Amino acid sequence: MPELTSIQFGFVANILSMAIATLGAAAIFFFVGPGISPKYKLAVTVSGVVCAIATYHYFRIYDSFVSAYAMNQVGGSVTYVASGMVFNDFYRYADWFITVPLLMVELVAVLALPREQGRKILLKLVIATALMVALGYPGEISSDSGTRWLWWTLSMIPFIYVLYVLYVELGRALTTQPQEVRGLINLARNVTLVSWMFYPIAYAIKTVYGLDANGEVAIQAGYTVADITAKAGYGLLIYAIARSKSRLEMGLPADVVTKGPALAH
Amino acid sequence: MPELTSIQFGFVANILSMAIATLGAAAIFFFVGPGISPKYKLAVTVSGVVCAIATYHYFRIYDSFVSAYAMNQVGGSVTYVASGMVFNDFYRYADWFITVPLLMVELVAVLALPREQGRKILLKLVIATALMVALGYPGEISSDSGTRWLWWTLSMIPFIYVLYVLYVELGRALTTQPQEVRGLINLARNVTLVSWMFYPIAYAIKTVYGLDANGEVAIQAGYTVADITAKAGYGLLIYAIARSKSRLEMGLPADVVTKGPALAH
Repeated sequence: MPELTSIQFGFVANILSMAIATLGAAAIFFFVGPGISPKYKLAVTVSGVVCAIATYHYFRIYDSFVSAYAMNQVGGSVTYVASGMVFNDFYRYADWFITVPLLMVELVAVLALPREQGRKILLKLVIATALMVALGYPGEISSDSGTRWLWWTLSMIPFIYVLYVLYVELGRALTTQPQEVRGLINLARNVTLVSWMFYPIAYAIKTVYGLDANGEVAIQAGYTVADITAKAGYGLLIYAIARSKSRLEMGLPADVVTKGPALAH
Repeated sequence: MPELTSIQFGFVANILSMAIATLGAAAIFFFVGPGISPKYKLAVTVSGVVCAIATYHYFRIYDSFVSAYAMNQVGGSVTYVASGMVFNDFYRYADWFITVPLLMVELVAVLALPREQGRKILLKLVIATALMVALGYPGEISSDSGTRWLWWTLSMIPFIYVLYVLYVELGRALTTQPQEVRGLINLARNVTLVSWMFYPIAYAIKTVYGLDANGEVAIQAGYTVADITAKAGYGLLIYAIARSKSRLEMGLPADVVTKGPALAH
Protein backbone atom coordinates (compact mmCIF):
# COMPACT_ATOMS: atom_id res chain seq x y z
CA MET A 1 0.00 0.00 0.00
CA PRO A 2 1.51 3.36 -1.02
CA GLU A 3 1.83 6.13 1.58
CA LEU A 4 -1.16 8.50 1.41
CA THR A 5 -1.58 12.10 2.47
CA SER A 6 -4.24 12.69 5.05
CA ILE A 7 -6.49 14.16 2.33
CA GLN A 8 -6.02 11.09 0.09
CA PHE A 9 -6.72 8.71 2.96
CA GLY A 10 -9.79 10.67 4.02
CA PHE A 11 -11.07 10.83 0.45
CA VAL A 12 -10.97 7.06 -0.01
CA ALA A 13 -12.47 6.33 3.43
CA ASN A 14 -15.22 8.87 2.79
CA ILE A 15 -16.14 7.58 -0.64
CA LEU A 16 -16.26 4.02 0.75
CA SER A 17 -18.61 5.27 3.49
CA MET A 18 -20.80 6.99 0.89
CA ALA A 19 -21.04 3.66 -0.93
CA ILE A 20 -22.34 2.02 2.26
CA ALA A 21 -24.94 4.78 2.69
CA THR A 22 -26.02 4.81 -0.96
CA LEU A 23 -26.13 1.06 -1.53
CA GLY A 24 -27.80 0.44 1.84
CA ALA A 25 -30.47 3.05 1.11
CA ALA A 26 -30.97 1.63 -2.38
CA ALA A 27 -31.41 -1.90 -0.96
CA ILE A 28 -34.14 -0.74 1.42
CA PHE A 29 -35.83 1.28 -1.30
CA PHE A 30 -35.94 -1.68 -3.69
CA PHE A 31 -37.46 -3.89 -0.98
CA VAL A 32 -40.25 -1.46 -0.07
CA GLY A 33 -40.54 0.78 -3.16
CA PRO A 34 -44.20 1.05 -4.19
CA GLY A 35 -46.05 0.68 -7.48
CA ILE A 36 -44.61 -2.63 -8.71
CA SER A 37 -47.07 -5.29 -9.85
CA PRO A 38 -46.45 -8.93 -8.81
CA LYS A 39 -45.19 -9.73 -12.31
CA TYR A 40 -42.19 -7.38 -11.91
CA LYS A 41 -41.65 -7.71 -8.17
CA LEU A 42 -38.90 -10.30 -8.58
CA ALA A 43 -36.72 -8.03 -10.72
CA VAL A 44 -36.88 -5.22 -8.16
CA THR A 45 -36.39 -7.56 -5.20
CA VAL A 46 -33.23 -8.95 -6.81
CA SER A 47 -32.00 -5.34 -7.20
CA GLY A 48 -32.48 -4.99 -3.44
CA VAL A 49 -30.59 -8.21 -2.76
CA VAL A 50 -27.69 -7.07 -4.95
CA CYS A 51 -27.46 -3.75 -3.09
CA ALA A 52 -27.70 -5.48 0.30
CA ILE A 53 -24.81 -7.81 -0.61
CA ALA A 54 -22.77 -4.84 -1.80
CA THR A 55 -23.54 -2.90 1.40
CA TYR A 56 -22.13 -5.78 3.44
CA HIS A 57 -19.00 -5.90 1.29
CA TYR A 58 -18.49 -2.14 1.51
CA PHE A 59 -18.57 -2.38 5.31
CA ARG A 60 -15.80 -4.99 5.00
CA ILE A 61 -13.85 -2.98 2.42
CA TYR A 62 -14.11 0.16 4.56
CA ASP A 63 -12.83 -1.64 7.67
CA SER A 64 -10.12 -3.40 5.69
CA PHE A 65 -8.94 -0.13 4.13
CA VAL A 66 -8.93 1.79 7.41
CA SER A 67 -7.01 -0.92 9.24
CA ALA A 68 -4.50 -1.33 6.41
CA TYR A 69 -3.23 2.15 7.24
CA ALA A 70 -1.71 3.70 10.33
CA MET A 71 -1.54 7.41 11.05
CA ASN A 72 2.03 8.67 10.95
CA GLN A 73 2.68 11.99 12.62
CA VAL A 74 6.05 13.60 11.88
CA GLY A 75 6.27 17.07 13.37
CA GLY A 76 3.10 18.87 12.36
CA SER A 77 2.40 16.78 9.26
CA VAL A 78 0.23 13.68 9.18
CA THR A 79 0.45 10.96 6.55
CA TYR A 80 -0.96 7.46 6.39
CA VAL A 81 1.42 4.54 5.95
CA ALA A 82 0.87 0.79 5.54
CA SER A 83 0.03 -0.69 8.94
CA GLY A 84 1.08 -4.19 7.91
CA MET A 85 -2.54 -5.42 7.89
CA VAL A 86 -3.62 -6.64 4.47
CA PHE A 87 -6.11 -4.65 2.40
CA ASN A 88 -8.26 -7.48 1.16
CA ASP A 89 -9.14 -7.17 -2.53
CA PHE A 90 -11.11 -10.39 -2.40
CA TYR A 91 -14.15 -8.61 -0.92
CA ARG A 92 -14.60 -6.84 -4.25
CA TYR A 93 -14.27 -10.05 -6.28
CA ALA A 94 -16.53 -11.96 -3.90
CA ASP A 95 -19.09 -9.20 -4.30
CA TRP A 96 -18.88 -9.16 -8.08
CA PHE A 97 -18.97 -12.95 -8.32
CA ILE A 98 -22.31 -13.02 -6.50
CA THR A 99 -23.89 -9.78 -7.67
CA VAL A 100 -22.95 -9.47 -11.34
CA PRO A 101 -24.89 -12.59 -12.42
CA LEU A 102 -27.80 -11.25 -10.30
CA LEU A 103 -27.72 -7.99 -12.27
CA MET A 104 -28.43 -10.12 -15.34
CA VAL A 105 -31.33 -11.79 -13.49
CA GLU A 106 -32.81 -8.32 -12.81
CA LEU A 107 -32.66 -7.38 -16.47
CA VAL A 108 -34.12 -10.60 -17.85
CA ALA A 109 -36.81 -10.65 -15.12
CA VAL A 110 -37.96 -7.11 -15.85
CA LEU A 111 -38.21 -7.85 -19.57
CA ALA A 112 -40.58 -10.76 -18.80
CA LEU A 113 -39.63 -12.50 -22.03
CA PRO A 114 -41.43 -15.68 -23.15
CA ARG A 115 -40.34 -18.42 -20.73
CA GLU A 116 -38.08 -20.50 -22.98
CA GLN A 117 -36.39 -17.50 -24.57
CA GLY A 118 -35.82 -15.81 -21.18
CA ARG A 119 -34.40 -18.98 -19.66
CA LYS A 120 -31.88 -19.46 -22.49
CA ILE A 121 -30.64 -15.89 -22.51
CA LEU A 122 -30.39 -15.80 -18.71
CA LEU A 123 -28.39 -19.02 -18.57
CA LYS A 124 -25.85 -17.64 -21.03
CA LEU A 125 -25.58 -14.33 -19.18
CA VAL A 126 -25.25 -15.85 -15.71
CA ILE A 127 -22.56 -18.34 -16.70
CA ALA A 128 -20.60 -15.80 -18.75
CA THR A 129 -20.65 -13.08 -16.06
CA ALA A 130 -19.63 -15.47 -13.27
CA LEU A 131 -16.80 -16.74 -15.47
CA MET A 132 -15.75 -13.19 -16.29
CA VAL A 133 -15.31 -12.29 -12.61
CA ALA A 134 -13.72 -15.61 -11.62
CA LEU A 135 -11.13 -15.41 -14.40
CA GLY A 136 -10.11 -11.90 -13.35
CA TYR A 137 -9.17 -12.82 -9.80
CA PRO A 138 -6.03 -14.97 -10.35
CA GLY A 139 -4.57 -12.06 -12.29
CA GLU A 140 -5.62 -9.46 -9.72
CA ILE A 141 -3.61 -11.11 -6.95
CA SER A 142 -0.56 -11.69 -9.14
CA SER A 143 2.22 -9.15 -9.42
CA ASP A 144 3.68 -10.78 -12.55
CA SER A 145 2.72 -8.77 -15.58
CA GLY A 146 2.55 -11.82 -17.89
CA THR A 147 0.24 -13.66 -15.51
CA ARG A 148 -1.88 -10.56 -15.11
CA TRP A 149 -2.33 -10.16 -18.89
CA LEU A 150 -3.11 -13.85 -19.35
CA TRP A 151 -6.04 -13.77 -16.92
CA TRP A 152 -7.17 -10.36 -18.13
CA THR A 153 -7.42 -11.74 -21.66
CA LEU A 154 -9.22 -14.89 -20.48
CA SER A 155 -11.67 -12.73 -18.53
CA MET A 156 -12.33 -10.48 -21.53
CA ILE A 157 -13.64 -13.41 -23.58
CA PRO A 158 -16.80 -13.91 -21.50
CA PHE A 159 -17.10 -10.11 -21.15
CA ILE A 160 -17.27 -9.67 -24.91
CA TYR A 161 -19.67 -12.60 -25.14
CA VAL A 162 -21.93 -10.89 -22.55
CA LEU A 163 -21.94 -7.72 -24.65
CA TYR A 164 -22.83 -9.80 -27.71
CA VAL A 165 -25.78 -11.39 -25.90
CA LEU A 166 -26.94 -8.04 -24.46
CA TYR A 167 -26.71 -6.07 -27.69
CA VAL A 168 -27.44 -8.65 -30.38
CA GLU A 169 -29.54 -11.51 -28.94
CA LEU A 170 -31.37 -9.34 -26.43
CA GLY A 171 -31.71 -6.56 -28.99
CA ARG A 172 -33.96 -8.84 -31.04
CA ALA A 173 -36.08 -9.60 -27.98
CA LEU A 174 -36.55 -5.90 -27.16
CA THR A 175 -38.90 -5.31 -30.07
CA THR A 176 -41.55 -7.09 -27.98
CA GLN A 177 -41.23 -4.48 -25.19
CA PRO A 178 -43.65 -1.53 -24.93
CA GLN A 179 -42.50 1.52 -26.85
CA GLU A 180 -42.61 3.66 -23.68
CA VAL A 181 -39.87 1.75 -21.87
CA ARG A 182 -37.50 0.87 -24.70
CA GLY A 183 -35.42 3.95 -24.03
CA LEU A 184 -35.04 2.98 -20.36
CA ILE A 185 -34.09 -0.59 -21.25
CA ASN A 186 -31.49 0.65 -23.68
CA LEU A 187 -30.18 3.02 -21.01
CA ALA A 188 -29.91 0.14 -18.52
CA ARG A 189 -27.89 -1.82 -21.08
CA ASN A 190 -25.62 1.15 -21.77
CA VAL A 191 -25.09 1.77 -18.05
CA THR A 192 -23.95 -1.85 -17.81
CA LEU A 193 -21.56 -1.44 -20.71
CA VAL A 194 -20.04 1.85 -19.55
CA SER A 195 -19.79 1.05 -15.83
CA TRP A 196 -18.38 -2.43 -16.47
CA MET A 197 -15.73 -1.02 -18.81
CA PHE A 198 -14.12 0.63 -15.80
CA TYR A 199 -13.01 -2.69 -14.29
CA PRO A 200 -10.83 -4.10 -17.12
CA ILE A 201 -9.43 -0.64 -17.84
CA ALA A 202 -8.43 -0.09 -14.19
CA TYR A 203 -6.89 -3.59 -14.12
CA ALA A 204 -4.91 -2.89 -17.29
CA ILE A 205 -3.63 0.45 -15.98
CA LYS A 206 -2.53 -1.23 -12.75
CA THR A 207 -0.69 -3.88 -14.77
CA VAL A 208 1.16 -1.36 -16.93
CA TYR A 209 1.92 1.40 -14.45
CA GLY A 210 1.58 -0.16 -10.99
CA LEU A 211 -0.13 1.98 -8.40
CA ASP A 212 1.38 5.02 -6.73
CA ALA A 213 -0.63 6.97 -4.16
CA ASN A 214 -2.71 8.83 -6.76
CA GLY A 215 -3.30 5.59 -8.65
CA GLU A 216 -4.47 3.81 -5.50
CA VAL A 217 -6.87 6.66 -4.71
CA ALA A 218 -8.16 6.78 -8.30
CA ILE A 219 -8.71 3.02 -8.48
CA GLN A 220 -10.57 2.85 -5.14
CA ALA A 221 -12.74 5.85 -6.03
CA GLY A 222 -13.33 4.50 -9.54
CA TYR A 223 -14.34 1.01 -8.37
CA THR A 224 -16.69 2.58 -5.85
CA VAL A 225 -18.38 4.93 -8.30
CA ALA A 226 -18.63 2.11 -10.85
CA ASP A 227 -20.22 -0.17 -8.23
CA ILE A 228 -22.74 2.47 -7.11
CA THR A 229 -23.65 3.12 -10.75
CA ALA A 230 -23.85 -0.53 -11.79
CA LYS A 231 -25.92 -1.55 -8.74
CA ALA A 232 -27.92 1.35 -7.27
CA GLY A 233 -28.15 3.44 -10.45
CA TYR A 234 -28.90 0.44 -12.67
CA GLY A 235 -31.34 -0.83 -10.02
CA LEU A 236 -33.22 2.48 -10.18
CA LEU A 237 -33.54 2.00 -13.94
CA ILE A 238 -34.88 -1.53 -13.38
CA TYR A 239 -37.32 -0.03 -10.83
CA ALA A 240 -38.44 2.65 -13.32
CA ILE A 241 -38.93 0.02 -16.06
CA ALA A 242 -40.85 -2.27 -13.67
CA ARG A 243 -43.01 0.59 -12.43
CA SER A 244 -43.78 1.87 -15.92
CA LYS A 245 -44.62 -1.61 -17.22
CA SER A 246 -46.82 -2.21 -14.14
CA ARG A 247 -48.69 1.03 -14.88
CA LEU A 248 -49.03 0.33 -18.60
CA GLU A 249 -50.49 -3.10 -17.86
CA MET A 250 -53.06 -1.47 -15.55
CA GLY A 251 -54.03 0.89 -18.37
CA LEU A 252 -52.28 3.90 -16.79
CA PRO A 253 -49.69 6.04 -18.58
CA ALA A 254 -46.05 5.13 -17.88
CA ASP A 255 -44.22 7.12 -15.18
CA VAL A 256 -41.31 8.00 -17.35
CA VAL A 257 -41.44 7.88 -21.10
CA THR A 258 -38.06 7.78 -22.74
CA LYS A 259 -37.27 7.99 -26.36
CA GLY A 260 -34.37 5.65 -26.84
CA PRO A 261 -32.54 5.02 -30.08
CA ALA A 262 -33.98 2.34 -32.35
CA LEU A 263 -33.39 -1.06 -30.75
CA ALA A 264 -34.00 -3.40 -33.63
CA HIS A 265 -31.16 -5.52 -34.95
CA MET B 1 -10.90 19.91 18.88
CA PRO B 2 -11.25 22.10 21.98
CA GLU B 3 -10.98 20.51 25.43
CA LEU B 4 -14.42 19.65 26.80
CA THR B 5 -15.69 19.21 30.33
CA SER B 6 -17.13 15.82 31.07
CA ILE B 7 -20.64 17.36 30.98
CA GLN B 8 -20.01 18.95 27.56
CA PHE B 9 -18.60 15.72 26.14
CA GLY B 10 -21.50 13.69 27.52
CA PHE B 11 -24.03 16.21 26.22
CA VAL B 12 -22.77 15.96 22.62
CA ALA B 13 -22.43 12.16 22.72
CA ASN B 14 -25.95 11.86 24.15
CA ILE B 15 -27.57 14.16 21.63
CA LEU B 16 -25.85 12.27 18.80
CA SER B 17 -27.24 9.04 20.23
CA MET B 18 -30.71 10.57 20.42
CA ALA B 19 -30.41 11.41 16.73
CA ILE B 20 -29.69 7.74 15.95
CA ALA B 21 -32.77 6.70 17.96
CA THR B 22 -35.07 9.36 16.51
CA LEU B 23 -34.02 9.07 12.88
CA GLY B 24 -33.92 5.27 13.00
CA ALA B 25 -37.41 5.15 14.50
CA ALA B 26 -38.67 7.66 11.94
CA ALA B 27 -37.24 5.55 9.11
CA ILE B 28 -39.08 2.44 10.30
CA PHE B 29 -42.30 4.39 10.83
CA PHE B 30 -42.22 5.82 7.31
CA PHE B 31 -41.67 2.36 5.83
CA VAL B 32 -44.60 0.77 7.62
CA GLY B 33 -46.85 3.73 8.54
CA PRO B 34 -50.44 2.97 7.51
CA GLY B 35 -53.14 4.88 5.68
CA ILE B 36 -51.18 5.99 2.65
CA SER B 37 -52.71 5.29 -0.76
CA PRO B 38 -50.46 3.95 -3.56
CA LYS B 39 -50.38 7.40 -5.17
CA TYR B 40 -48.54 8.93 -2.17
CA LYS B 41 -46.55 5.91 -1.07
CA LEU B 42 -43.42 6.99 -2.93
CA ALA B 43 -43.19 10.31 -1.05
CA VAL B 44 -43.39 8.58 2.33
CA THR B 45 -40.98 5.81 1.28
CA VAL B 46 -38.39 8.39 0.28
CA SER B 47 -38.82 10.00 3.75
CA GLY B 48 -37.93 6.61 5.19
CA VAL B 49 -34.89 6.26 2.96
CA VAL B 50 -33.68 9.74 3.98
CA CYS B 51 -33.99 8.90 7.68
CA ALA B 52 -32.25 5.53 7.16
CA ILE B 53 -29.30 7.22 5.44
CA ALA B 54 -29.10 9.79 8.25
CA THR B 55 -29.23 7.03 10.88
CA TYR B 56 -26.20 5.39 9.29
CA HIS B 57 -24.33 8.70 9.25
CA TYR B 58 -25.18 9.44 12.88
CA PHE B 59 -23.68 6.10 13.87
CA ARG B 60 -20.50 7.18 12.06
CA ILE B 61 -20.59 10.71 13.53
CA TYR B 62 -21.10 9.31 17.04
CA ASP B 63 -18.17 6.90 16.69
CA SER B 64 -15.99 9.57 15.11
CA PHE B 65 -16.80 12.07 17.89
CA VAL B 66 -16.18 9.61 20.70
CA SER B 67 -12.87 8.42 19.28
CA ALA B 68 -11.70 12.00 18.59
CA TYR B 69 -11.57 12.52 22.37
CA ALA B 70 -9.62 10.86 25.17
CA MET B 71 -10.52 11.03 28.85
CA ASN B 72 -8.02 13.05 30.83
CA GLN B 73 -8.02 12.54 34.60
CA VAL B 74 -6.08 15.06 36.65
CA GLY B 75 -6.59 14.53 40.36
CA GLY B 76 -10.33 14.28 40.90
CA SER B 77 -11.32 16.20 37.78
CA VAL B 78 -12.04 14.65 34.41
CA THR B 79 -11.90 16.50 31.09
CA TYR B 80 -11.89 15.31 27.50
CA VAL B 81 -8.99 16.26 25.27
CA ALA B 82 -8.26 15.67 21.58
CA SER B 83 -7.12 12.06 21.12
CA GLY B 84 -5.35 12.79 17.83
CA MET B 85 -7.96 10.86 15.84
CA VAL B 86 -9.78 13.02 13.33
CA PHE B 87 -13.39 14.07 13.91
CA ASN B 88 -14.70 13.59 10.41
CA ASP B 89 -16.97 16.42 9.28
CA PHE B 90 -17.42 14.77 5.92
CA TYR B 91 -20.09 12.41 7.25
CA ARG B 92 -22.39 15.39 7.67
CA TYR B 93 -21.71 16.67 4.16
CA ALA B 94 -21.99 13.19 2.63
CA ASP B 95 -25.33 12.85 4.38
CA TRP B 96 -26.63 16.21 3.22
CA PHE B 97 -25.38 15.64 -0.33
CA ILE B 98 -27.48 12.48 -0.63
CA THR B 99 -30.48 13.37 1.54
CA VAL B 100 -31.20 17.05 0.85
CA PRO B 101 -32.09 16.45 -2.83
CA LEU B 102 -34.25 13.53 -1.63
CA LEU B 103 -36.16 15.88 0.71
CA MET B 104 -37.14 17.77 -2.44
CA VAL B 105 -38.25 14.50 -4.06
CA GLU B 106 -40.55 13.90 -1.04
CA LEU B 107 -42.18 17.29 -1.38
CA VAL B 108 -42.73 17.16 -5.13
CA ALA B 109 -43.96 13.54 -4.93
CA VAL B 110 -46.54 14.33 -2.23
CA LEU B 111 -47.88 17.28 -4.24
CA ALA B 112 -48.52 14.93 -7.19
CA LEU B 113 -48.29 17.82 -9.64
CA PRO B 114 -49.05 17.32 -13.33
CA ARG B 115 -46.24 15.19 -14.77
CA GLU B 116 -44.35 17.76 -16.83
CA GLN B 117 -44.63 20.53 -14.23
CA GLY B 118 -43.49 18.23 -11.41
CA ARG B 119 -40.54 16.96 -13.41
CA LYS B 120 -39.30 20.49 -14.20
CA ILE B 121 -39.58 21.80 -10.63
CA LEU B 122 -37.97 18.67 -9.20
CA LEU B 123 -35.01 18.86 -11.59
CA LYS B 124 -34.31 22.46 -10.54
CA LEU B 125 -34.61 21.63 -6.83
CA VAL B 126 -32.45 18.51 -6.98
CA ILE B 127 -29.62 20.16 -8.90
CA ALA B 128 -29.69 23.33 -6.80
CA THR B 129 -29.72 21.51 -3.44
CA ALA B 130 -26.89 19.13 -4.43
CA LEU B 131 -24.86 22.14 -5.61
CA MET B 132 -25.62 24.02 -2.38
CA VAL B 133 -24.16 21.21 -0.24
CA ALA B 134 -21.21 20.48 -2.54
CA LEU B 135 -20.16 24.15 -2.61
CA GLY B 136 -20.21 24.37 1.18
CA TYR B 137 -17.69 21.59 1.77
CA PRO B 138 -14.46 23.15 0.39
CA GLY B 139 -15.07 26.05 2.78
CA GLU B 140 -15.93 23.83 5.73
CA ILE B 141 -12.55 22.08 5.61
CA SER B 142 -10.60 25.31 5.16
CA SER B 143 -9.30 27.33 8.07
CA ASP B 144 -8.67 30.42 5.94
CA SER B 145 -11.40 32.97 6.53
CA GLY B 146 -11.31 34.33 2.93
CA THR B 147 -11.67 30.82 1.47
CA ARG B 148 -14.45 30.06 3.90
CA TRP B 149 -16.43 33.19 2.92
CA LEU B 150 -15.89 32.52 -0.80
CA TRP B 151 -17.46 29.04 -0.63
CA TRP B 152 -20.14 30.21 1.79
CA THR B 153 -21.20 32.87 -0.73
CA LEU B 154 -21.11 30.42 -3.66
CA SER B 155 -23.21 27.97 -1.67
CA MET B 156 -25.77 30.67 -0.77
CA ILE B 157 -26.56 31.26 -4.47
CA PRO B 158 -28.23 27.87 -5.02
CA PHE B 159 -29.78 28.15 -1.52
CA ILE B 160 -31.53 31.39 -2.44
CA TYR B 161 -32.55 29.89 -5.77
CA VAL B 162 -34.10 26.92 -3.92
CA LEU B 163 -36.10 29.32 -1.74
CA TYR B 164 -37.25 31.14 -4.88
CA VAL B 165 -38.44 27.88 -6.46
CA LEU B 166 -40.12 26.75 -3.22
CA TYR B 167 -41.90 30.01 -2.46
CA VAL B 168 -42.57 31.49 -5.89
CA GLU B 169 -42.73 28.74 -8.51
CA LEU B 170 -44.13 26.11 -6.17
CA GLY B 171 -46.43 28.72 -4.61
CA ARG B 172 -48.27 28.97 -7.91
CA ALA B 173 -48.64 25.19 -8.09
CA LEU B 174 -50.09 25.00 -4.57
CA THR B 175 -53.40 26.51 -5.61
CA THR B 176 -54.19 23.12 -7.18
CA GLN B 177 -53.83 21.39 -3.78
CA PRO B 178 -56.88 20.61 -1.62
CA GLN B 179 -57.76 23.43 0.78
CA GLU B 180 -57.44 21.07 3.78
CA VAL B 181 -53.72 20.38 3.32
CA ARG B 182 -52.45 23.77 2.15
CA GLY B 183 -51.57 24.77 5.69
CA LEU B 184 -49.50 21.57 6.14
CA ILE B 185 -47.71 22.09 2.84
CA ASN B 186 -46.89 25.63 3.80
CA LEU B 187 -45.64 24.40 7.17
CA ALA B 188 -43.40 21.82 5.47
CA ARG B 189 -41.95 24.60 3.34
CA ASN B 190 -41.37 26.82 6.37
CA VAL B 191 -39.75 23.98 8.32
CA THR B 192 -37.36 23.60 5.39
CA LEU B 193 -36.57 27.31 5.39
CA VAL B 194 -36.07 27.63 9.15
CA SER B 195 -34.14 24.39 9.74
CA TRP B 196 -31.91 24.95 6.69
CA MET B 197 -31.08 28.48 7.86
CA PHE B 198 -29.20 26.96 10.79
CA TYR B 199 -26.44 25.56 8.57
CA PRO B 200 -25.15 28.76 6.88
CA ILE B 201 -25.53 30.68 10.15
CA ALA B 202 -23.50 28.10 12.11
CA TYR B 203 -20.88 28.09 9.35
CA ALA B 204 -20.67 31.90 9.42
CA ILE B 205 -20.34 32.01 13.22
CA LYS B 206 -17.54 29.43 13.03
CA THR B 207 -15.77 31.54 10.40
CA VAL B 208 -15.97 34.74 12.45
CA TYR B 209 -15.39 33.48 15.98
CA GLY B 210 -13.76 30.06 15.58
CA LEU B 211 -14.99 27.39 17.93
CA ASP B 212 -14.19 27.23 21.62
CA ALA B 213 -15.63 24.42 23.76
CA ASN B 214 -19.06 26.04 24.07
CA GLY B 215 -19.09 26.78 20.34
CA GLU B 216 -18.21 23.18 19.49
CA VAL B 217 -20.99 21.89 21.74
CA ALA B 218 -23.50 24.40 20.35
CA ILE B 219 -22.67 23.59 16.73
CA GLN B 220 -22.87 19.81 17.21
CA ALA B 221 -26.15 20.10 19.10
CA GLY B 222 -27.50 22.61 16.58
CA TYR B 223 -26.63 20.50 13.54
CA THR B 224 -28.23 17.50 15.20
CA VAL B 225 -31.48 19.26 16.12
CA ALA B 226 -31.62 20.83 12.63
CA ASP B 227 -31.11 17.39 11.04
CA ILE B 228 -33.81 15.74 13.17
CA THR B 229 -36.21 18.58 12.34
CA ALA B 230 -35.44 18.70 8.62
CA LYS B 231 -35.66 14.90 8.20
CA ALA B 232 -37.87 13.24 10.83
CA GLY B 233 -40.04 16.29 11.60
CA TYR B 234 -40.41 17.28 7.95
CA GLY B 235 -41.01 13.62 7.07
CA LEU B 236 -43.88 13.52 9.56
CA LEU B 237 -45.43 16.52 7.80
CA ILE B 238 -45.05 14.75 4.45
CA TYR B 239 -46.71 11.72 6.06
CA ALA B 240 -49.59 13.86 7.37
CA ILE B 241 -50.07 15.47 3.94
CA ALA B 242 -49.94 12.07 2.19
CA ARG B 243 -52.41 10.59 4.67
CA SER B 244 -54.84 13.49 4.46
CA LYS B 245 -54.74 13.53 0.65
CA SER B 246 -55.24 9.74 0.63
CA ARG B 247 -58.31 10.15 2.86
CA LEU B 248 -59.74 13.06 0.86
CA GLU B 249 -59.41 11.07 -2.38
CA MET B 250 -61.35 8.22 -0.75
CA GLY B 251 -64.11 10.67 0.19
CA LEU B 252 -63.14 10.72 3.90
CA PRO B 253 -62.40 13.90 5.85
CA ALA B 254 -58.69 14.80 6.21
CA ASP B 255 -56.88 13.72 9.39
CA VAL B 256 -55.59 17.13 10.22
CA VAL B 257 -57.06 20.27 8.79
CA THR B 258 -54.72 23.21 8.97
CA LYS B 259 -55.47 26.76 8.08
CA GLY B 260 -52.34 28.08 6.51
CA PRO B 261 -51.78 31.60 5.27
CA ALA B 262 -52.92 32.38 1.74
CA LEU B 263 -50.59 30.61 -0.66
CA ALA B 264 -51.39 32.32 -3.93
CA HIS B 265 -48.71 34.34 -5.68
